[in-house]
Formats: sequence, C-alpha cells, structure tokens
Amino acid sequence: MAVTPSSISPEALEAFDLDPAFALHRGGKLETRSTVPVDDADDLALAYTPGVARVCTAIAERPELVNDYTWVSNVVAVVSDGTAVLGLGDIGPAAAMPVMEGKALLFKQFAGVDAVPICLDCTDVDALVETVVRLAPSFGGINLEDIGAPRCFEVEDRLRELLDIPVFHDDQHGTAIVVLAALRNAARLTGRSLGDLRAVVAGAGASGVAVSRILLNAGIGDIAVSDSKGLIHQGRDGLNPVKEALARDTNRAGLRGSTEQALAGADVFVGLSGSTVSEGAIASMAPGAIVFALSNPTPEVHPEVARRHALVVATGRSDFPNQINNVLAFPGVFRGALDVRATTVTENMKVAAAEALAAVVGDDDLSADYVIPSPFDERVAPAVTAAVAAQARADGVARR
Amino acid sequence: MAVTPSSISPEALEAFDLDPAFALHRGGKLETRSTVPVDDADDLALAYTPGVARVCTAIAERPELVNDYTWVSNVVAVVSDGTAVLGLGDIGPAAAMPVMEGKALLFKQFAGVDAVPICLDCTDVDALVETVVRLAPSFGGINLEDIGAPRCFEVEDRLRELLDIPVFHDDQHGTAIVVLAALRNAARLTGRSLGDLRAVVAGAGASGVAVSRILLNAGIGDIAVSDSKGLIHQGRDGLNPVKEALARDTNRAGLRGSTEQALAGADVFVGLSGSTVSEGAIASMAPGAIVFALSNPTPEVHPEVARRHALVVATGRSDFPNQINNVLAFPGVFRGALDVRATTVTENMKVAAAEALAAVVGDDDLSADYVIPSPFDERVAPAVTAAVAAQARADGVARR
Repeated sequence: MAVTPSSISPEALEAFDLDPAFALHRGGKLETRSTVPVDDADDLALAYTPGVARVCTAIAERPELVNDYTWVSNVVAVVSDGTAVLGLGDIGPAAAMPVMEGKALLFKQFAGVDAVPICLDCTDVDALVETVVRLAPSFGGINLEDIGAPRCFEVEDRLRELLDIPVFHDDQHGTAIVVLAALRNAARLTGRSLGDLRAVVAGAGASGVAVSRILLNAGIGDIAVSDSKGLIHQGRDGLNPVKEALARDTNRAGLRGSTEQALAGADVFVGLSGSTVSEGAIASMAPGAIVFALSNPTPEVHPEVARRHALVVATGRSDFPNQINNVLAFPGVFRGALDVRATTVTENMKVAAAEALAAVVGDDDLSADYVIPSPFDERVAPAVTAAVAAQARADGVARR
Repeated sequence: MAVTPSSISPEALEAFDLDPAFALHRGGKLETRSTVPVDDADDLALAYTPGVARVCTAIAERPELVNDYTWVSNVVAVVSDGTAVLGLGDIGPAAAMPVMEGKALLFKQFAGVDAVPICLDCTDVDALVETVVRLAPSFGGINLEDIGAPRCFEVEDRLRELLDIPVFHDDQHGTAIVVLAALRNAARLTGRSLGDLRAVVAGAGASGVAVSRILLNAGIGDIAVSDSKGLIHQGRDGLNPVKEALARDTNRAGLRGSTEQALAGADVFVGLSGSTVSEGAIASMAPGAIVFALSNPTPEVHPEVARRHALVVATGRSDFPNQINNVLAFPGVFRGALDVRATTVTENMKVAAAEALAAVVGDDDLSADYVIPSPFDERVAPAVTAAVAAQARADGVARR
C-alpha cells in the first residue's frame, strides 16, 4: 500500500505553522548534498561516466572497496515501521517520518554520521527482516527505531544474524546504555557498586527489556521487572519467550504483585512504562534511593515529588536535571562502529559506551543533579566513539 | 546475503588513488545535512521531542501533510539491483553504488531534488516490486536504474500500478526523452517532421524499447528494431512479450535480416546495442541521414566516420558534438513531477519534456553539431520542469 497524499491549502498550512514546531518542519529537515564538485564536464567525467565505471569495476572485483569509495561506510539507515512511535503508538510509516528525519539530523550533528530515514510499509517480522536485508548493501549500519515489542526483539536478532554490519535498536540499547551510565554515576556518588543495588524496572517493552539485560550484564545485584500485569516471575502464565527469559534471569527474590509493592526497600527504580508510581511507593524505597522516571512527556512520578525521598532523580525531560537522552549514546556508538568497520555491536561495546559516557562526569562535578552529561556536552560523542571503537577491536569485530 | 567487506591497506588505497576518479570517490560523493538548526536544547525541542510529536500526530490524522512537513516530497530513491550497470553488466548492488550515488548528485545539482542511492540485494521481479512498495512511504518518487531487461519492464509496470508517486526507469525514459528531443531538432534542421522519417533502432533492451515507444507515440513514420538475433518482425519465433508487442507496432515494412540491411535507405539510425555498424551501412542510408550512435564508451560507429555520410551525428560521449545525456531529462522530469505532486509520469509528460528540451535550441542556434543542448545549459532543467508540471496538470495527475 502506498501513502496516498493529496494537497492542503496554503491557508490551512499557515494555520498549522502558528505552532513553531510546524513552522520549523515545513519542507522537511533533511537534505542530500554532494561532497565533490559537479560543475563542469570534467567533474562529471570523474564523478559519473566514464570515470565512475572504473570504480564500479574495482568494487566488483574487491567488494570491500565499497567502503572506501562510496558513502556506504558513513551512512546509517534509520528504519522504522511506525508501530511504536514516541508515546504515540502505531501511527504508521508516514507519520513516523518526522521522528526518523529528526534522528537522522542528530546522527549528523552529534557524530558526523550520514543517516537516511526509511519508514517501511510493512509490520510483519519476516517482511521487515527481508526488506532490511535487501537494503543492506546501501548502508554501513542499521538503526532500528520505534518498532513495537515483542516484534522488535526478533527483527533485531535475525538481522544481527544475517548482516555483517552494525544493527542497533536504539529504543532498546540507546536507552540501556544511558541508563547504565547514569546508574553507575548515581552509585558512585554514594560509594556503592552496581552489585550492591536491587532495582525495579517498570516496563517490559523494548527499553525495559534492554535496560534489564544491560544491568544484568553489568552485574546489578538483582532486578524485578514488571509489565502491565505486574511483576514478572518464574511460573507466571502466558509469558512470551522474551519475558520467559527475563523471568529466569531476574527477580531472584521471587517477588510477586505490583511494581509499587516491589519498591519497598529497593535501591533503584527505572520507569519505562508510562504508568504512574505513588509518592508512598517512592518513600518506601531504601535510603539513598535512585529514581529514573523516564516516561515522556509525563514521568511515572513527578521529579520534584520523587526528590523528597530519593537521592538521585532522573527523567527523560530536558527541563529537569539528569536527562536520560538516547542522543548521548547512539551517535557515538555508530561513529565508533563505523570508524573501525565493525561487523556488529557487541554487548561489551554497549557497556563500554556506558562506561565512557559515565566517565565524562568527573568526580569533582558529580552531584545528585549531575549524574549524566548534557546532550550538548561536546566531550560525549568523542568519548563514546573512542570506547566503542576500542572495544570493537578488543572483541575482534573490527575490520580495520 | 550481505555485502561482506573487509578492509584494504592504506598503501593499496594510495595506489588506487593515482587514478583521479578513485581519488575523487574516496569517502564517497554524497552526504546528508540538516536544513534546520540543532544547536541547543530549544532547537531539539522543536526538531525532535517533544515538538516533533505534534507534527507526527497531524500526519497520522491527515496523511497528505507528510509532503508539507517532511522531506518526503523532495526526495527520490535511486533504486538499482546492479544487474545492468552502465556497460558493465551484472556487477551486483555494492559495485553499482558509485553510479547510483553519482545519479543522486546529478538530481541535486541540476534540479535541487534530494536523492538517496538504494542498491538492493535481490533481482527477482516480485522481490524488487515488493521491496520498493515497502520503501515508498519514505520517498516522493522512485527512479529505477540499471535493472536488466526484460525484468525492468515488469518491475516498472507493476510499481506504476501499485504506487501513487512517480516511478521512472531512467535507462528507458530518460534516454527516450533525450533521443526524441534530438531527433525532433535534427528533423527540424532539414524541414522534415517525424512522420517523414523511417528509423532503425539497434537494441531491444531497456533503452531500445523505450526509445521505440516514444518515437511511435510521437508519430515517427516507421521503425525497425533489432536485437542480437536481427530485426524484430511479426512471426519471429521466441519473442518475449515486450518484443512481441514491438513486433506488432513496428516494422510495418516487414523487414527481416540484420540491422545493417535495414539501414539501406533509412533516415535515422539509433544505436543502443553496443554492436558495431559498418561505414558501408551508414553510407547506404537516405540523404540527410541522422545517426545516433549512443553506445558508451564505444559508439556503434565512430562519429567522424558517420559524419562523412550523415547530416547529423550524435553520441553518448561528451567529447563529440550532440551528446545524448540522460541528465538533460531526469532532473527536470522529477522536479516538475514533485513540484505538482504528480501521482505518476504519463506518456504525455515524457513527450512534453522532450519538446521542451528540443525547444531550448533556438532556430538561430540549431545546426548539425548542435541539435541538443549541453548538460550544463542552465535553461534545460527549468524548461523541462515547467513543461512536465504543466502537462501533469493537463493530464489530471497533479495534486496541487
């Protein structure tokens, strides 16, 4: 099925444009540009026929040259099916386009990575996988975005299996990296290590699962994860395979019941569910509690309320301290992976990204209101890039 | 199957770069750029969350707004499967990338159309069609490129059927438009009309078929088309459906045999086959003969040899007069179609493009060595754009 647009009157558009977000979006936010001159016949004879034929022939003989003589090794596809866009849900590929276009800007702005928004008119796992595999020769990496859970897990797993370029579902791993970085710093602030902490993660969608996974990999003491039906535990009926695996690896205490019940005595709350958590539940947490209320635009608990009881509070919003923003991670992750032509993004590379991000906040600067750097901190992307590239080499997935 | 690149030593790359075409291609020729500021949190709050969510919501409610508030209505996918690249043949999607990237530059340079090279790792007609349909919400038009015949015909026909954005196979229609324009001017030079001319078209691949079709639509007297087995005529065994249709519509004289035999007494030769034509065969053409020897890099007959016998000679090369270059057509065709948000490119729009292109050469300038403007003539793209947009409106396929 195609998008079926017709046109809208100039007057109607002017009314939209009273909103500055619309005015800014008019005509789109992205363009392609030539990086070489194409001003005369001599330029064309090199950039296009006949000169280009020699480059094509060389790549046909030595496929790896595609990375040296085309933009492929610097360009990422930002791929969505439009089924889980921001908090808006399944709005379809056309309506998802402004987000993917925005993401493409961030790639370029923060890490010099070219990026193309690709919103696909299919939602079936097989169709998504097949389509991205067919597109893959045109790109150096695949950033999956806003694909609903649990399909996103299988789409990513299968693409990682089939492709030898980085595939990274940002809703999962971008969030996970930034949460881990902020949590490391929050623990550092009180002299604790991750192993000392018991966490409750509300939400078992893309980000909840990935956050739980990275915290487990990083050695968190224990986690209880909840979904809309309450805490996930072994033996709960009707779990999908992803939650089944979570049940095995989390909640060693065997807690049952609600998110709020699990918060009693917990050290960390990570909200990724869009549900609300009462002040009483936050007050029931252990001393020195760490509260990451990350739902947008409405955090699970208002940060000022949480701050009455918790030592460190973070949100997804730019108007409160400690913004957990994926843009702290994905530009540097891809920059680092592309720079060394990594075949994949390993778990170690994600943890290395989180550690590098955490380390941007020096001991002297670290405070309850500053456990994570600003998205505009210029030290962030280079630090993440270097750590990811080095870890790719250490993991044997770098090609140069 | 993925591209499987590894890396090449800096020394090896330096050796490649002794060729200026390689040096120019190093790192690729294309980039993406933001067209809006993303310098601080206020910018991000408009271009990305939370502002972007309002734009997404509006598009979800009124899908046509995607054309006003994203880059979609200005961006074309340059899609290839790498099976018929230049004269190089089936070199695969990675090796095709430099050509598609070059094409993207030309779109931008000549008509301000953003374009993204998409080389697909599939060659089956169903797979190509299905993939492009899935990609379509991300683009305002589809430029098919270097897909082998006869698959290219079915791919284009089916996509035109399924999509409500322009789908244009440049190897077919770009060439056809420029040939028609040059032929109109060559005829004008000698006071003839197309109906006075009998043509021989060597080659029944993508360009040969499309050139034959546009010449028939434009009222050519008669055409004989040949493929590797000789002239196509009714009753010839083993014709595929495309050639079957050509047999019905061409060669009213019922000629059989070779291309060279058909040239005896013919007014026009259009070479699109890569085969050679002898000087004797050119000499056997009618007085005032028009010879378009378009194979690249080696024309079917050397233009200086052809010029001994023919009145007008054109080639595909920039180092001889009368270069038949698709860049004279496709940028303006897409610019015009996108400007009015055309749902398709009609046959009339192609003929209108050819007429506008021909008309750029005024009566005072028209000569045997100047029947078609230079690719760098700045009047070309605006003239083609205006004609295509106007014809789209006249044909009822414009959406604004």
